[in-house]
Amino acid sequence: MTNFSPSRPISTDDVPAWDWEIDVAVIGFGSAGACAAIGARAAGADVHIFEVASGSGGTSAMAGGDIYLGGNGGTPVQRANGFEDQTDDFYQYMLLAGGDDADPDRTRIYADAALDHYDWLVEQGVTYRMTHLPGKVQAPGTGDCLIWSGNEDAWPYREEAKPCPRGHLPEVVGEMGGRYLVDTLAASAEEKGCVVHYDARALTLITNADRTVAGIVVRIDGAPRFVRAQKGVILCAGGFVLNEDMMRQYAPQTTKLAADALSGGHDDGSGIRMGIGVGAAAIHMEELFLTLPIYPPASHVKGILVNEAGQRFTNEDAYPGRVAVHCTRQPGKQIFLLVDDEIFEQPTEFSRIEIAAVGETWDEVESEIGVPEGSLVNTVRIHNQFAAKGEDPLFHKTEKWLKPLDKPPFAALACHMGEAFYPYFTLGGLRTRPSGEVLTVDGEVVQGLYAAGRTACGLPRSGENYSSGMSLGDCTFFGRMAGGAAAARSADGA
Amino acid sequence: MTNFSPSRPISTDDVPAWDWEIDVAVIGFGSAGACAAIGARAAGADVHIFEVASGSGGTSAMAGGDIYLGGNGGTPVQRANGFEDQTDDFYQYMLLAGGDDADPDRTRIYADAALDHYDWLVEQGVTYRMTHLPGKVQAPGTGDCLIWSGNEDAWPYREEAKPCPRGHLPEVVGEMGGRYLVDTLAASAEEKGCVVHYDARALTLITNADRTVAGIVVRIDGAPRFVRAQKGVILCAGGFVLNEDMMRQYAPQTTKLAADALSGGHDDGSGIRMGIGVGAAAIHMEELFLTLPIYPPASHVKGILVNEAGQRFTNEDAYPGRVAVHCTRQPGKQIFLLVDDEIFEQPTEFSRIEIAAVGETWDEVESEIGVPEGSLVNTVRIHNQFAAKGEDPLFHKTEKWLKPLDKPPFAALACHMGEAFYPYFTLGGLRTRPSGEVLTVDGEVVQGLYAAGRTACGLPRSGENYSSGMSLGDCTFFGRMAGGAAAARSADGA
Repeated sequence: MTNFSPSRPISTDDVPAWDWEIDVAVIGFGSAGACAAIGARAAGADVHIFEVASGSGGTSAMAGGDIYLGGNGGTPVQRANGFEDQTDDFYQYMLLAGGDDADPDRTRIYADAALDHYDWLVEQGVTYRMTHLPGKVQAPGTGDCLIWSGNEDAWPYREEAKPCPRGHLPEVVGEMGGRYLVDTLAASAEEKGCVVHYDARALTLITNADRTVAGIVVRIDGAPRFVRAQKGVILCAGGFVLNEDMMRQYAPQTTKLAADALSGGHDDGSGIRMGIGVGAAAIHMEELFLTLPIYPPASHVKGILVNEAGQRFTNEDAYPGRVAVHCTRQPGKQIFLLVDDEIFEQPTEFSRIEIAAVGETWDEVESEIGVPEGSLVNTVRIHNQFAAKGEDPLFHKTEKWLKPLDKPPFAALACHMGEAFYPYFTLGGLRTRPSGEVLTVDGEVVQGLYAAGRTACGLPRSGENYSSGMSLGDCTFFGRMAGGAAAARSADGA
Repeated sequence: MTNFSPSRPISTDDVPAWDWEIDVAVIGFGSAGACAAIGARAAGADVHIFEVASGSGGTSAMAGGDIYLGGNGGTPVQRANGFEDQTDDFYQYMLLAGGDDADPDRTRIYADAALDHYDWLVEQGVTYRMTHLPGKVQAPGTGDCLIWSGNEDAWPYREEAKPCPRGHLPEVVGEMGGRYLVDTLAASAEEKGCVVHYDARALTLITNADRTVAGIVVRIDGAPRFVRAQKGVILCAGGFVLNEDMMRQYAPQTTKLAADALSGGHDDGSGIRMGIGVGAAAIHMEELFLTLPIYPPASHVKGILVNEAGQRFTNEDAYPGRVAVHCTRQPGKQIFLLVDDEIFEQPTEFSRIEIAAVGETWDEVESEIGVPEGSLVNTVRIHNQFAAKGEDPLFHKTEKWLKPLDKPPFAALACHMGEAFYPYFTLGGLRTRPSGEVLTVDGEVVQGLYAAGRTACGLPRSGENYSSGMSLGDCTFFGRMAGGAAAARSADGA
């Protein structure tokens, strides 16, 4: 019994002896795992957390830390800043953000409960400053809270749901809010009596003869330990962005990007692989959060993006995640951001956006970057002509981000795939109910198995429509749900 | 035991009695199933085929019947028409046609064996006429054989592999060659002693305690029958294009298309669901063969396609499958094919392409279809200017399909998604070895289980790069491989 594979479960018959017999085993101690543990413990369960790293955090600790919250008339921060966010607008926006296969049940539950979830986060010790940052910002590190973190005021979303800022950043100055968020949640879990095992790698699931999940094998100090989880195993082991074999088979579009995988170091897909191994469905495995930070500086949003044919292809004021997905659909790898002297500022270093060409006329720029003669010049001409009237009939950019690019010198900035910074993580994962119960392809429950965070396919399941804060919102809220549901399950599987 | 679900296997312990004890059970009697049965029988196995319909054929019978073959200096038909097709060119083209996750092993085996496969098809009774149809045709129903059925001479493929026609249509006049092809293969299978059960629905797999596949439950005359397949079960049950739940979760981009699913009537994903249920990985589930028949008439390939912003987006001389995938990536649902009087012919009725606007100038057409002022006019102007020189620096259309659109009257033809004919079927399926052995997400073999045809993810796995004839080539060749591999497996799983 030394050769374990995540996708090959073992039978209870093959367990030499149980090292632990507990109610709920949580795999992974990022934000989803912490909240699952708190949720299960709050429902009275005996909870052990098994984390492969030597500390908590997972990939959540790498995030800016914003959580997408709203509706219910507004969170305290939204209200303090004069935003009344109706639940229906929040729900409608979240449905759009879920893409063509948005999950209405999951979205409805989240929209209805988001204000309660804000309160719950505060109860765990997360603090929010009652401030709002307008305009185009991304995790500014000022400790301010409320930001426009998605496509709320961009076309076509603004026509379907009343725009409102909903990204809630925790009160942390000068560092990533995700680290603070997950530290706070982890401390709360430990304080409530969850037992944490670090350096504990989950190896594979243990199933009964009837294929229900009975526990999990974990490797601690080099030896397999057998954990009986009488109520359930909750997989919160992150995504699969570091698993090259899975990335190639599920999301091969990443092969044209530079390796900018966003991960805390352990997104090897083991949670998803364990689920697949016991017959669960994995869905939307090709979907990625993928972004291209064309701002800061915010002024660059007034520039226009063109492909190798010298043509525009999207509204540049959309969330950079949407912009990046549209970039990957263009022919070739070259993408240029066109700016004029009035809006140009040196791009941030981390964006790796370099100046490809500068010219006194757009003809000069066109010729220098080698796009077909007349193509880029015409694109700019048509853009300028409409922008002067505050219109963008081609791609529906909002008026406030429209301006003619007519102040020389002009520049083309290289946002090429494989060169500029296109960080990404995976959105696909195990199919689950809102309760976290893992489902087969026929929609039946895999008894005893739960998943949350990026091991599951949750609220965020469409890179084109993603908003910042959706993943942590999903991790924390549906982590809680999974914990509660597992704790409420009777050990015999009813 | 009356409630069976494809994704919930049962245990051998739950089998009341074996109705049949055979070597190999083949599920589905389309082209993959027929070839799997022939392959297994040729290797000495006792083979039963279980087909849900009342006759053979499956979705293969709906196809034009072309099989993608070449290399090895050329098939007899290629040589008779003066085409020398080197294996490396064939291999290289097939790799491109497989997209970002093309399978080099599978492709190499197929490229090396394609000439043998031609001979094998002829041995089964398939006849080919030694003729070639040049130009842009699709299943013309003349009984002629060799056609350009993919992107061979389109950019960027023509730069990577020497172009050659490789679609081989069987000698059938006036009807679909797929029906003839599969009838011929089915007759061969029966003649060789394979036992066929029609009206036999596969319900779920049967597994041993160690999770190896031991057989299958099929429903015949309303009752479950238990089939012990001592060497293996080969799933050849087609794709999942008719399963609404799966389509929504795996390929939700189809929600914007009209329902033009290509299916013989039974592509409910049951084969894939059975595989997932026993822990197999399903890959590239979002990929579709999807096409937009802008020709015949071939002259329309000289037209240009524009999106709602009035911009071109692809080389129109690519295979219509590639064109269709690029259409679905455009903003909005409206796609227009612009033609002038010189190339216009009434589109075929089945294409459902209607005339959206006619004008004496492109300004008139632009205004009538409501694209932004100046945008379409500029697109045509730039296109015409380069086309007059035989160039297309924007999208690299081949010179022979380039002409200025300058002979009024001009027309815009509506190729809109949800209106024009965009037929599609699924390419995603179970991960397999070239032998047909079904694999877990960790690349381990699910003992006793094989898959071929569109139940597997085979050679065709990228809608953007697909060529006509790849799917039937994959079904027939890797069906044979799976049959041979299953027959060679010893009953104890070695």
